[in-house]
Amino acid sequence: MTYCVGMKLRRGLVFMADTRTNAGIDNVSTFRKLYTWETPGERFLTLMAAGNLATTQEVVSLLEERAKAPDKRDPSILHTESIFQTARLVAATLKEVVAGMTGGGQTANSPFAASFILGGQIAGGEPRLFLIYPEGNFIEAGDDTPFFQIGETKYGKPIIVRAYDADMDFPDVIKLLLVSFDSTLKANLSVGMPLDLLIYDKGDLKAGMRHRFERDDAYFRLVSEGWSKALKDAFTILPGFPGPGVDEAKRS
Amino acid sequence: MTYCVGMKLRRGLVFMADTRTNAGIDNVSTFRKLYTWETPGERFLTLMAAGNLATTQEVVSLLEERAKAPDKRDPSILHTESIFQTARLVAATLKEVVAGMTGGGQTANSPFAASFILGGQIAGGEPRLFLIYPEGNFIEAGDDTPFFQIGETKYGKPIIVRAYDADMDFPDVIKLLLVSFDSTLKANLSVGMPLDLLIYDKGDLKAGMRHRFERDDAYFRLVSEGWSKALKDAFTILPGFPGPGVDEAKRS
Repeated sequence: MTYCVGMKLRRGLVFMADTRTNAGIDNVSTFRKLYTWETPGERFLTLMAAGNLATTQEVVSLLEERAKAPDKRDPSILHTESIFQTARLVAATLKEVVAGMTGGGQTANSPFAASFILGGQIAGGEPRLFLIYPEGNFIEAGDDTPFFQIGETKYGKPIIVRAYDADMDFPDVIKLLLVSFDSTLKANLSVGMPLDLLIYDKGDLKAGMRHRFERDDAYFRLVSEGWSKALKDAFTILPGFPGPGVDEAKRS
Repeated sequence: MTYCVGMKLRRGLVFMADTRTNAGIDNVSTFRKLYTWETPGERFLTLMAAGNLATTQEVVSLLEERAKAPDKRDPSILHTESIFQTARLVAATLKEVVAGMTGGGQTANSPFAASFILGGQIAGGEPRLFLIYPEGNFIEAGDDTPFFQIGETKYGKPIIVRAYDADMDFPDVIKLLLVSFDSTLKANLSVGMPLDLLIYDKGDLKAGMRHRFERDDAYFRLVSEGWSKALKDAFTILPGFPGPGVDEAKRS
């Protein structure tokens, strides 16, 4: 499995991805799932991948190769006119890769399936965030749904839904993402440390701060342990069920 | 979908089930998913069901019919010698029902699939809790995994894992279950109010307190709103990410 989150804020974009890949529970590896391309001052792009590793790696490799020789081979991820066109390019590349693997068209339940979160900004446009489905269609984040998750999305979603605020500053968003990842890590062994973080400051047109959270990262441990304790404290403060018949049952 | 939780505590057993059934998002109904059988002083049994409604209803109806005329038709859920044998009976009934529907054996991906949580106590034995899989095999809760969930299990699991304690008293367990259900209700439309609660006091050999939490239940709202606020407060107290490059990016 995998867990990746991309978020749109007023200040910019934030991306976090785990690094665990598994082919069965007895075959676990660490792979980077967060990729960036940039032409400083002109464009900045990030792609996060979930799903079949052979598929995601081939998609990224094709995008990389074509970006390195953009004059020879089009389309190049460095030459698209908008993030929307970039999403179309990634989606088309995904379809191309899966078609090559299956010898036919992609279907939703294909074992070669992969999904992507694409975010970035191109000069003249706003920062944008897209979710690309295994079928090669995609949706864009808006004010109502300003974040996307791929992979093991459920365990870490409730806290994002409750605490997300578009006006959050990066330090608080990183805290929020770590809480969300911590809940997921605790519940699903196929999501694993280290975690890759990347922030993008609106208008910068180049990558912002990157950080890899290793298992012994002091801030990650502070958040993980602090959140565990805070949850327990919050739970303790809530009053127990006061209904009749609950407490006197054995005490009369 | 469905969300049901059965828990084993030192004080006894606790069961909670939602009541939403849907056949597509445009066909939503309310059905009870928590059933009990008892011979006061001799045995108490609870069954909670998730999955295909036709399957679960037929299983329960067969168990009911055979329990009402136990002398005429064996096996009866009121005549099993242990909770383990009761689990075998429920599992066999499930296989019988699915076989009748498919004309063949059950397979894991059958659209007729259903799973059950069975709990109870029979005179001379301890309270026991079982999870019955769609394939008709089953497992029992122990000290390491003292609770089972069926249906939409992921959203509500993290808080149970963190806060469960076998020594908890019923008022606190009910609070814990409501927090877990609230997280699930907020995330998955196919899990819905009202919620059915049943507690079983160890050694009683008859049903304990029952309660149906409707949407406007005062205690449920107190827990839901209190938990939302407590989470936000807990999140606020944790310090933001202190790393370099995060905060000064746009402020220099």
